[in-house]
Amino acid sequence: MNMEPTLKYIGVVNSPLKRIEDCPKLESENAPEATLTILPEFLEGVKDIKPGQRLILFTWLHIGDRTTIKVHPRDNPDTPLTGVFSTRSPDRPNPIGMHVVNVTAIEEPGLLKVSGLEVLDQTPLIDIKPAL
Amino acid sequence: MNMEPTLKYIGVVNSPLKRIEDCPKLESENAPEATLTILPEFLEGVKDIKPGQRLILFTWLHIGDRTTIKVHPRDNPDTPLTGVFSTRSPDRPNPIGMHVVNVTAIEEPGLLKVSGLEVLDQTPLIDIKPAL
Repeated sequence: MNMEPTLKYIGVVNSPLKRIEDCPKLESENAPEATLTILPEFLEGVKDIKPGQRLILFTWLHIGDRTTIKVHPRDNPDTPLTGVFSTRSPDRPNPIGMHVVNVTAIEEPGLLKVSGLEVLDQTPLIDIKPAL
Repeated sequence: MNMEPTLKYIGVVNSPLKRIEDCPKLESENAPEATLTILPEFLEGVKDIKPGQRLILFTWLHIGDRTTIKVHPRDNPDTPLTGVFSTRSPDRPNPIGMHVVNVTAIEEPGLLKVSGLEVLDQTPLIDIKPAL
């Protein structure tokens, strides 16, 4: 197996969710609109993204605890301790967040408004794929 | 923005697809059965995965070209050069593969058979989430 790689941040999420307590537990629960700010060196990579498109965003949930292997789902101590790979906990060995969003506007090249994103302000963005 | 992080490999894909030319371009095109071998330190994280479950696997497409920002979709030179974040090209700044698979068997703890996975043999696995 080859060397373990370092991620490149391609941008950052700007969101009204400033504290972990502000975050809904699932996307369906009232996630607000957010803005993606793409770093200059990756602008050409988002040039074909248009309002109305549905995207899958990958974030790095940077405050996640990377030593977590088992969790109580949804932070409820009454739920049984569960292998983290059977959950969507942000505490996991590689805290990759996956979020399906709609593009609502392109404010300028590299400034993308999206709806329904439940991550904290300043969360790094690591990939974007079209939702098929 | 904080330091760019290093991924941890949680396991590896064992697949009959040994060469890039063997890989179907999309999962729907005849992807074979594969085995996920989970590394010992992450075994507890997969203990609740059962046959019949549907998972989202995240892989590191380690032979992807990380300098790619624009691509001809599906490697077809007749398609227009497209921003890589509007495509699923494995050549991208962070070559994260996302794959929806079905668990067909757990051969022993940490050896998971899955169907419909279109990645090369020896591709590192970086995360597993339940498909909702």
